[in-house]
Amino acid sequence: MATPLKGACIIGQSGGPSAVINASAYGVIKTALDNENITKVYGAHHGIKGVLNDQLLIMDEEDPKELERLLYTPSSALGSCRYKIADPDVDDTDYKRILEIFQKYDVRYFFYNGGNDSMDTCEKVSRYMAKVGYECNVIGVPKTIDNDLFGTDHCPGFASAAKYIATSFMEVSRDAHVYDTGMITIIECMGRHAGWLTAAAALANEMGDGPDFIYLPERDFDLDKFIADVTECYQKNGNCIVAVSEGIHYADGKFVSEAKTSATDGFGHAQLGGLAATLANLMKERTGAKVRGIELSLLQRCAAHCASGTDIAEAFEAGKVAVESAVAGITGKMVGFECDRTNNYVCKTKLFDLKEVANFEKKVPQEWINEAGNHVNKAFIDYCMPLIQGETMMVKENGLPRFCRLKKVFAK
Amino acid sequence: MATPLKGACIIGQSGGPSAVINASAYGVIKTALDNENITKVYGAHHGIKGVLNDQLLIMDEEDPKELERLLYTPSSALGSCRYKIADPDVDDTDYKRILEIFQKYDVRYFFYNGGNDSMDTCEKVSRYMAKVGYECNVIGVPKTIDNDLFGTDHCPGFASAAKYIATSFMEVSRDAHVYDTGMITIIECMGRHAGWLTAAAALANEMGDGPDFIYLPERDFDLDKFIADVTECYQKNGNCIVAVSEGIHYADGKFVSEAKTSATDGFGHAQLGGLAATLANLMKERTGAKVRGIELSLLQRCAAHCASGTDIAEAFEAGKVAVESAVAGITGKMVGFECDRTNNYVCKTKLFDLKEVANFEKKVPQEWINEAGNHVNKAFIDYCMPLIQGETMMVKENGLPRFCRLKKVFAK
Repeated sequence: MATPLKGACIIGQSGGPSAVINASAYGVIKTALDNENITKVYGAHHGIKGVLNDQLLIMDEEDPKELERLLYTPSSALGSCRYKIADPDVDDTDYKRILEIFQKYDVRYFFYNGGNDSMDTCEKVSRYMAKVGYECNVIGVPKTIDNDLFGTDHCPGFASAAKYIATSFMEVSRDAHVYDTGMITIIECMGRHAGWLTAAAALANEMGDGPDFIYLPERDFDLDKFIADVTECYQKNGNCIVAVSEGIHYADGKFVSEAKTSATDGFGHAQLGGLAATLANLMKERTGAKVRGIELSLLQRCAAHCASGTDIAEAFEAGKVAVESAVAGITGKMVGFECDRTNNYVCKTKLFDLKEVANFEKKVPQEWINEAGNHVNKAFIDYCMPLIQGETMMVKENGLPRFCRLKKVFAK
Repeated sequence: MATPLKGACIIGQSGGPSAVINASAYGVIKTALDNENITKVYGAHHGIKGVLNDQLLIMDEEDPKELERLLYTPSSALGSCRYKIADPDVDDTDYKRILEIFQKYDVRYFFYNGGNDSMDTCEKVSRYMAKVGYECNVIGVPKTIDNDLFGTDHCPGFASAAKYIATSFMEVSRDAHVYDTGMITIIECMGRHAGWLTAAAALANEMGDGPDFIYLPERDFDLDKFIADVTECYQKNGNCIVAVSEGIHYADGKFVSEAKTSATDGFGHAQLGGLAATLANLMKERTGAKVRGIELSLLQRCAAHCASGTDIAEAFEAGKVAVESAVAGITGKMVGFECDRTNNYVCKTKLFDLKEVANFEKKVPQEWINEAGNHVNKAFIDYCMPLIQGETMMVKENGLPRFCRLKKVFAK
């Protein structure tokens, strides 16, 4: 092995947050702080924008006890951004600036923690640095509740959201069955193009309290079929619980959530109303049933109090392995997982080419969806169930989560 | 003390469920099963309707281990109802039927677990039995997430919902602050006439992550003031998080949630859209900010996974004391709490006259709301904080809650 690069590192977070993205950041930060080849650990304030704006937080200045709380703190503690960086071969303005900052702080390691777009950013930075001959190892650390990153078995962040969703479906299911007069409940989960999170509602069925139907964006939505499904179930059982993905769409590709016209609220503005409310309302008109439309909204992606212990551990491990790999001289890779579920669940980290993972979306396999297109089958359960095992060790104060509070000391 | 009545008991649950109403039921059931004067323990299937329909579940037939899980199972395991019983002095049809059932099963103890309406039912049954000279001791066991029962310091069910709400506000607050581009987030909590649950969002502020504003139904809602508040906060901080009660209303009494006209969805039906979405949409138009409207909906009342340990223990105790009091010859009372917060929090059960508690609504005191009417003060925090302490001991299987599964054996 060649002599490791000696210099500072930057860790940045990007895209929508999750319950465990900070656990990955902590994996990077702690491992980097402990590594003798890494001279300083910087956190980019609001992702790549923090690099471009020369806003770097000095992680060495933080209390190690406080940093450890990152394991149980949701959202991106360093701040996130949604910034689409140009292709360096077309416009290298941003890259020149990044190089300038890397040189200013002697940055030799760059870790980027995010989803599809972040892996794309990572790949471009890696490519540019190689092109200009600036020695800097770049590793991506995956994060997305959507679970749509290519290559890896699953993404840190997905399992915690899945656990929250399954738990909430169990609880709402108990609530919705309490009266002798029935109810139709429609619950909307996140997932614009991939139905992983919505499918996770099926885990609740394994405990006897899940949804009757699950509609994913992986299948074209048929409104008449939906109405028939729900009506039949309601008439038979006096109750019906449905999970719908925000991204369900008709055969022509049009999102069901956008199929609204002339809706205005009392203030004369266009009505934003949610998909769940719209479908619930529709079913009320069709069946006369009492209905509830529930949107899990941001709750599902930040519910650290209900995070999966497995997810937290794996998220940390991904960050740790990113640093270890970079110090070992590797660059242009993303840390992902390869899992074996034959006997017990065994999850190992594996490096994927950034070029291969960026900008592909992994969807729920068609063969994991039932024939009627309104539920998932055992293959999905077998895939997902191991991921939600174990509980968070979150410390509470005053009966509430005690989240990490960073000092946020900026580098000059 | 007179010789205790010997005979069977019935426990019924009524009204909207909570995370701990089953803990109260378990307090009744376990104490009754252990009491030598109580010959049989029946659960009324769907509250008083279960009595009227002669649908009684035999609790003696259930596995004691399974019954214990009621401590951590949300919603009403025996089934609930919303049935407004007539005044016995006006129409005694239902009461004659209740008496018939009581005689059929030799019921000498009747426990009813619910909110305002349930205490009213309880009081009427008690009054009728006394009038016709049928010896039966009737005790109410309070439950309501709304916390609006008169007399008692607080109601079982409120604290667990409050803990979930405060936790969720903390988590969403972290999420909403993640980007450098700001956001206005409006979160709607339950509470038609009393703002207790919405006020609980303020507990999150004690941990540094709460709402900027809280609007309760205890104050008339001023839309212009609301817009000014939120706009100023957003312009100053680039972010604003707001808690609104579903029951906020204008000075003329009209609910803000109903102030909508001509709203239709894509299917041509009247739009149900939520209060949070409506207000968020309005603020988007006014400020150009990115907005999110979130309705906590059923999630807040059934989130047993985030229940307060204190609430669970007190809910159980209320049920236990109900049985002990009834066996001691007391009737026509509700078990409530009297609390001392001078040094540590000390909570004692106390019996209240059913006549006094039924049909009054306890609201958040005006002096606990700030002068601007857009937040609560320390008096509320001091009141509420002790109630949310402690965690649930819920057992999990497959990483998910293992709720109680009753056999539901009906009496013939």
